Amino acid sequence: MRKPPTLLSLTIDIALLNLSHISDLSFLPDHVLLELFLRTLRAGKLTEKILKLFVATGKDEILSLISELNIQLILTPVLPTINIRDDEVDIVIGALHLDLTSFMEDWRAVFSRFHLIIVQDPDLKGDLKIPGGFSFDVYTKSDIESVVGSSSSSVVFSGYSCRYFGYLVSHKKYIISIDDDCTPAKDDKGELIDAVAQHITNLMTPATPFFFNTLYDPFRKGTDFVRGYPFSLRSGVQCGLSCGLWLNLADYDAPTQALKPGQRNSRFVDAVLTVPARAMLPVSGINIGFDRELVGPAMVPAFRLAKEGKFRWETVEDIWSGMCVKVICDHLGYGVKSGLPYVWRNERGNAVESLKKEWEGVKLMEEVVPFFQSMRLSQGAVTAEDCVIEMAAAVKERLEPLDPVFARASEAMVEWVKLWKVVTSRLSNFAA
Amino acid sequence: MRKPPTLLSLTIDIALLNLSHISDLSFLPDHVLLELFLRTLRAGKLTEKILKLFVATGKDEILSLISELNIQLILTPVLPTINIRDDEVDIVIGALHLDLTSFMEDWRAVFSRFHLIIVQDPDLKGDLKIPGGFSFDVYTKSDIESVVGSSSSSVVFSGYSCRYFGYLVSHKKYIISIDDDCTPAKDDKGELIDAVAQHITNLMTPATPFFFNTLYDPFRKGTDFVRGYPFSLRSGVQCGLSCGLWLNLADYDAPTQALKPGQRNSRFVDAVLTVPARAMLPVSGINIGFDRELVGPAMVPAFRLAKEGKFRWETVEDIWSGMCVKVICDHLGYGVKSGLPYVWRNERGNAVESLKKEWEGVKLMEEVVPFFQSMRLSQGAVTAEDCVIEMAAAVKERLEPLDPVFARASEAMVEWVKLWKVVTSRLSNFAA
Repeated sequence: MRKPPTLLSLTIDIALLNLSHISDLSFLPDHVLLELFLRTLRAGKLTEKILKLFVATGKDEILSLISELNIQLILTPVLPTINIRDDEVDIVIGALHLDLTSFMEDWRAVFSRFHLIIVQDPDLKGDLKIPGGFSFDVYTKSDIESVVGSSSSSVVFSGYSCRYFGYLVSHKKYIISIDDDCTPAKDDKGELIDAVAQHITNLMTPATPFFFNTLYDPFRKGTDFVRGYPFSLRSGVQCGLSCGLWLNLADYDAPTQALKPGQRNSRFVDAVLTVPARAMLPVSGINIGFDRELVGPAMVPAFRLAKEGKFRWETVEDIWSGMCVKVICDHLGYGVKSGLPYVWRNERGNAVESLKKEWEGVKLMEEVVPFFQSMRLSQGAVTAEDCVIEMAAAVKERLEPLDPVFARASEAMVEWVKLWKVVTSRLSNFAA
Repeated sequence: MRKPPTLLSLTIDIALLNLSHISDLSFLPDHVLLELFLRTLRAGKLTEKILKLFVATGKDEILSLISELNIQLILTPVLPTINIRDDEVDIVIGALHLDLTSFMEDWRAVFSRFHLIIVQDPDLKGDLKIPGGFSFDVYTKSDIESVVGSSSSSVVFSGYSCRYFGYLVSHKKYIISIDDDCTPAKDDKGELIDAVAQHITNLMTPATPFFFNTLYDPFRKGTDFVRGYPFSLRSGVQCGLSCGLWLNLADYDAPTQALKPGQRNSRFVDAVLTVPARAMLPVSGINIGFDRELVGPAMVPAFRLAKEGKFRWETVEDIWSGMCVKVICDHLGYGVKSGLPYVWRNERGNAVESLKKEWEGVKLMEEVVPFFQSMRLSQGAVTAEDCVIEMAAAVKERLEPLDPVFARASEAMVEWVKLWKVVTSRLSNFAA
């Protein structure tokens, strides 16, 4: 037999039902007040008005509970419902092949509500084939030249780097970029993954770089901060970059790919996490989203190998710009997330061929990673632009003596920030 | 129609078949040699003898390939087959309830091949009920007193801290400890999870704390290091601590639990990752494995709240010892992993009641976390014992002025290292 409810419990039940008609709670004994507060929370009835009622009691226990639980719940919900505004997002596609029909059709359900910026690899001759029903702008070699000039600039937009031109000319808050050899993946329940929605969710919910949450992203439905996580860190910080992953063909380098040609990634890991502050990661440009306002200038096409080709495993530009962004996020107090969403990556190219041609990237990482790991920016660097300029100087000083590729990288970083400022001010003048 | 194979390709095929009969490869042109080497790797035919044959050619391209790929494959396989030796593992159970029958029965398939150390909470009166068919030693209040004395020591083994006595008296390399309110969980395919095997795998495969691998644990089957991961860091380091997770009731603190009493963790995240160096995490003692030889002395029951009770959310000892271990691993160059295995955690207790009684832990974390985040050990600290002693001094200096609980913590850390040395030398004398 169930125990009958106590008189106190019944009283609290009734108080809970009538809370909106009560104008003063300060007469209640402390333990009753605390219980009522917790039950109000549990019942999901803590409106702004009712919160004020509890605050007005001035009781220490209530005030400290509100502060400890970081209750601004009404203002910024712990589980935000992400509302993507179409006009805040640009999807940037680097076209390394003329016929985008099947790629675009595969992504139609996900992409069609957003504006697309399609940048044709300037080395690719001919006209792109793009199916109808999308809102897009195409940028070709001549468009690129009209912005950056045709003279020998250190910023080069050929191959995979053509996407960076899209980052430059966008004027949206969020950029999503997915390689044109990827199609939408399915999650572990067989549902098609909306990679754009997931990236935007990652970017719009806070990141937690200053303490690792063992249950991964505390802002996902059904999870939270685990015991021991300091309450003062639970509001998190803004997220600058969201790094998605790949099912089927993962993003390995040419030697790994050559060694394990049959390896396919079939493990769907249902998690997003914030990469802790001061930890570096290899950012892959295959499937990313970022907040252009926060970190756009750091997405710089600076690290270009002499024998770079048209396969991902021959490129390192994204690894470099990813570490630029990470250092800047650590410095300015933003977060970088990794994990969901997955895309399905299709086969392309022969890694053994790449291997014969290109080993430089793998070797250079041995210098690049310690450089970024030990990079500390000055307090004077308060914008992403400032940070990139400071890093460019450090690249020149510390890496240039090791390999000429770093001299070009340093120049490109300075040049890129100039370009960014020119294009951004031109766009804002245009908008005004 | 398939293109017919080239003559070169056929020759390489034949060479591959007869490699074990060939005693010299140095006459081959470089590109043929490289191709043969890659095909040998791909065919899984690179034995120690054949590796020597390639090395003997003295060709730069081959030697650099071997070095870049960090080929010691024959000695330490990239995907190690974990062979758990029963005599290297102790399972330590803190008994907070007298009747362990259902707990032990639930775990029989997993536990029964190992030796168990069962430590009865010294506050718990009566005799434990343990089913037959297990190899175990039980330690009670009088056993504890015979080792540490009954006088008022700063090291207290009551409540959840009784497990630490098991860590002290074990003489095995690996310890696995699981709370007695947990049962085996099932993975996403409905298979029962062997938590012990997973912890041992985590501890026996390398950790990678110096660069984050976006595909999580690179040593798991079907995965690897992603593009951009420096080859020099791919051999990894020894793993000191493996932190498992919880399905059903997650390890939240009392306020979170009180706020979301219905919340259950149902997301199975199929991943293990190394928590990056210098990032702190809230280690939960509910489900852990550690290498006692590497970090045993850092598993110290030092942080004890005045009103600590018999519920997990009223305790912080594990958060403290976890951060001690993390700081030590960062200093000595070991790794800490988090993720798999999951256990199923059952309901127990009323968080609202705990909340009325105990807020201290939540508040103190605001001091504890920055302390450990900024803790730097001296180069003179070369063992876990040294590190704990140095940390105890820092606790005394920096935290003791803030709260008396830290004075006790500092004393307990010093006392614990003394105890550890005495018990360890006694055990080794006994063994000799």
